[in-house]
Amino acid sequence: MEPPMEGSDSLSLVLFSGTDDKLAAAAILAAGAAMMGRRVNVFLQYWALDSFRKDRIHRDHGAVPEAGAEGARLVERSEKKQSWSDVLLQAKDVGELRITACAKSMELLDITKDDLDPIVDEVGGVAAFMAEATGPITFI
Amino acid sequence: MEPPMEGSDSLSLVLFSGTDDKLAAAAILAAGAAMMGRRVNVFLQYWALDSFRKDRIHRDHGAVPEAGAEGARLVERSEKKQSWSDVLLQAKDVGELRITACAKSMELLDITKDDLDPIVDEVGGVAAFMAEATGPITFI
Amino acid sequence: MEPPMEGSDSLSLVLFSGTDDKLAAAAILAAGAAMMGRRVNVFLQYWALDSFRKDRIHRDHGAVPEAGAEGARLVERSEKKQSWSDVLLQAKDVGELRITACAKSMELLDITKDDLDPIVDEVGGVAAFMAEATGPITFI
Repeated sequence: MEPPMEGSDSLSLVLFSGTDDKLAAAAILAAGAAMMGRRVNVFLQYWALDSFRKDRIHRDHGAVPEAGAEGARLVERSEKKQSWSDVLLQAKDVGELRITACAKSMELLDITKDDLDPIVDEVGGVAAFMAEATGPITFI
Repeated sequence: MEPPMEGSDSLSLVLFSGTDDKLAAAAILAAGAAMMGRRVNVFLQYWALDSFRKDRIHRDHGAVPEAGAEGARLVERSEKKQSWSDVLLQAKDVGELRITACAKSMELLDITKDDLDPIVDEVGGVAAFMAEATGPITFI
Repeated sequence: MEPPMEGSDSLSLVLFSGTDDKLAAAAILAAGAAMMGRRVNVFLQYWALDSFRKDRIHRDHGAVPEAGAEGARLVERSEKKQSWSDVLLQAKDVGELRITACAKSMELLDITKDDLDPIVDEVGGVAAFMAEATGPITFI
């Protein structure tokens, strides 16, 4: 295992899906990258954005269809021990992680900045997001 | 926000899903990257390829299951204002964007080049796609 | 088409979904990258990990919901000719491909190393995976 180089690439995560299993997978990757000293830029679109509303972020968001009833139960139990929003908060503490809500998706879902949980840092467009995406761009 | 460097990496987008919400998200990212001066290579597989048939590209392709009935309605309304195929056409105008149909998926779905909308530039294999993938590879 | 540079970036694939269409798409990308001389690191999470259990890897894992009954039939027929696990085995023969099971997902699904097919090389954490992810990180 090679150590990450100084000034290694940032990681750009585009979150599209709003189910708890995908958001937990995303949070784990974001936290892992932040711990390795990478800057992490998270961009919230569509159903992921919907799950970051302040009145919904702590709700049960289910799992993808293929999880089935048993898989969804395992995900729900795991979220009760440590939720994906907690993992993201911890990643913000140990490293550099910025969460941006996609302006176009805000419009589509008729959401204002006030509707979002304070874990979201700002609202922004895709051009600004792309300008900072100097490393991997991962769509989840 | 740093400007993108001269000769910055291309963006390789593998489109797998054929629903309108995922294709719209993909088109927005592709257009954003093209506007920032990045070369964008789009590779169409499976259900995304199916949505690029010339007799299906302008149809309603629905949304992912988690969107629910209300989410699907919002996506459909948004597509009527500006469809993802229009966004891709505009991206081709402002920048360098190439759309390749995966040869293996063509065979699986029993599709010929003639069945595809002219927005698709060519049919190609995964080895050629990978040879050009010098930057991020994003699967949608 | 430019040839890949000596020492070009590795490809890091995070497999989340366990349906046959997504795993086949992942295997094709992995094999294509390995053939181009790239090191490929595959990280198995959630439902993808579940599909690598030794008593499940050769079963029918269905397709994503949007495939419909007809699409699922096409995928099943294709898997009978050449399964995604065969494509991954061949990629291991021609190039450098390593498959790691995510330790956190093992715990969630209550799976031990013994439950997994021998195609999986090891169990590891996300920090080690991220430390080696010097190139694209693709989530499938």
